[in-house]
Amino acid sequence: MPRFSRLIRFIAADGKTYYGDAILPPGISDLSRVAEARVIEGDILSQGYRVTDQILDVNKLLAPFAPKDTKTVRCLGLNYAQHAKESNMDIPKFPVLFYKPNTSLSGPSDPIPIPKAAQDEPGLDYECELVVVIGKEARDVSEDSALDYVLGYCAGNDISHRDWQLKKGGGQWSLGKGFDGWAPIGPAIISPSLIPDPQKLRIFTKVNGQAVQDSSTADMIFSVAKTLSFLSQGTTLLPGDFVFTGTPPGVGMGRRPQYWLNDGDIVEVGIEGIGSITNKVMFERTKPRL
Amino acid sequence: MPRFSRLIRFIAADGKTYYGDAILPPGISDLSRVAEARVIEGDILSQGYRVTDQILDVNKLLAPFAPKDTKTVRCLGLNYAQHAKESNMDIPKFPVLFYKPNTSLSGPSDPIPIPKAAQDEPGLDYECELVVVIGKEARDVSEDSALDYVLGYCAGNDISHRDWQLKKGGGQWSLGKGFDGWAPIGPAIISPSLIPDPQKLRIFTKVNGQAVQDSSTADMIFSVAKTLSFLSQGTTLLPGDFVFTGTPPGVGMGRRPQYWLNDGDIVEVGIEGIGSITNKVMFERTKPRL
Repeated sequence: MPRFSRLIRFIAADGKTYYGDAILPPGISDLSRVAEARVIEGDILSQGYRVTDQILDVNKLLAPFAPKDTKTVRCLGLNYAQHAKESNMDIPKFPVLFYKPNTSLSGPSDPIPIPKAAQDEPGLDYECELVVVIGKEARDVSEDSALDYVLGYCAGNDISHRDWQLKKGGGQWSLGKGFDGWAPIGPAIISPSLIPDPQKLRIFTKVNGQAVQDSSTADMIFSVAKTLSFLSQGTTLLPGDFVFTGTPPGVGMGRRPQYWLNDGDIVEVGIEGIGSITNKVMFERTKPRL
Repeated sequence: MPRFSRLIRFIAADGKTYYGDAILPPGISDLSRVAEARVIEGDILSQGYRVTDQILDVNKLLAPFAPKDTKTVRCLGLNYAQHAKESNMDIPKFPVLFYKPNTSLSGPSDPIPIPKAAQDEPGLDYECELVVVIGKEARDVSEDSALDYVLGYCAGNDISHRDWQLKKGGGQWSLGKGFDGWAPIGPAIISPSLIPDPQKLRIFTKVNGQAVQDSSTADMIFSVAKTLSFLSQGTTLLPGDFVFTGTPPGVGMGRRPQYWLNDGDIVEVGIEGIGSITNKVMFERTKPRL
């Protein structure tokens, strides 16, 4: 049974949503320009799926996994030494874990909605991250076997508001990272068969076309395998769970002068061999009912 | 269409799992002794359910909601002034938010598994909490309308390991609170119609029969309504999401001398008008594959 290479979720010409295996023309590796896909039928999380011969036009790429199918989004903080330094934080001895709710997940071209509460103070920031998608239940797995539990990899942007994250949140980062749509992911979930070593990938962010982060996953403090093994201690990682593996240096908070995202800014986050996602910052104008 | 009063999930005599509305004999309010329930059919989260006339024996109470149907478990820290004081923390200006994964949810009589990683250092602690279950999508809801989004209330124990929470977690509490089964809940989800004021409930913990926490939800810093309104800012709370609303003083960390839970300890957490859950601490003996 053929397995997927580049799993996408997309809207086809008929207006319906499908899972598919992206078809790239020879010589093209830019997934944001994918035009066709082979339809995938069945349940990807139970491995009971198949890639069919039916080919459909791709009208719009969605988050490669339906957010409703994801339970838990785990994220690492300070997993690149230079980012810990620019954040004035200690190099962690253990992976620093926080969560985002599944409602923060969104697609590779969706706007990033900024609620009123996050518009009043400066501090809106980007974080390019390699994102791991869990493929089967993992508990107490060794570092050696950890990558066997990976369904695939995608790119993600851990949108953060530093004022809520670091000041108004009582020291817990959750408030400043969990708003609706603050974790765009995509453009596809790339099979591990195409990513033989997740620690050798260039990773970058561009804001309005200008490079602001440009590093390699080789600089992670805790590798993907170490991270998954550690997080699975006494804890069951479920199929469809996501793990954001931390961001390299160059975030707006760490720049001199500091740079904060503004209404209308275009943020692109990309990873070598995976592709990129491009999202527009959109300040919400409707007055909340609060 | 009759709505539930006390929603339970249970195993019946036929060995199958059902949702039901607990039947209490006249004069009995102790839900842990419930013997019968009216079967509930349909989808509770979409409000498309009905309480049928079919009555079944209740052999075993489960977590009142299937963990797989819950996406996000939000928790407040330091929401009782005296608990903030005993924790040597400042009184928060905004609700302090953290998360537990849905794999931490478990039933009202399930053992609490303590993995090897949390056995080596002292610090295992209990936290009785009033838990709110969201009944319909809530975003940017006012404090005045917030309680309209509540499906019901239950009791919960926010099991915590202070060493992982406060020391090894890099300042983020997640690692010390998210192990499998570290959020037992129950015994039922009580309809808001039976809890006219969630800020007037006695709440307690007993360890091996001895009272260690005994307070009132009147002492919360942020009321349930304030909390839900705040958490819904720019953030969609989904049906089936849980909100743990913080613990009163008396946790093991705050006692003099400090008291840490041990293998075999029996922890009971209860709330007036809701009932109690009783869970046994069970140190895991199998060597993890790490």
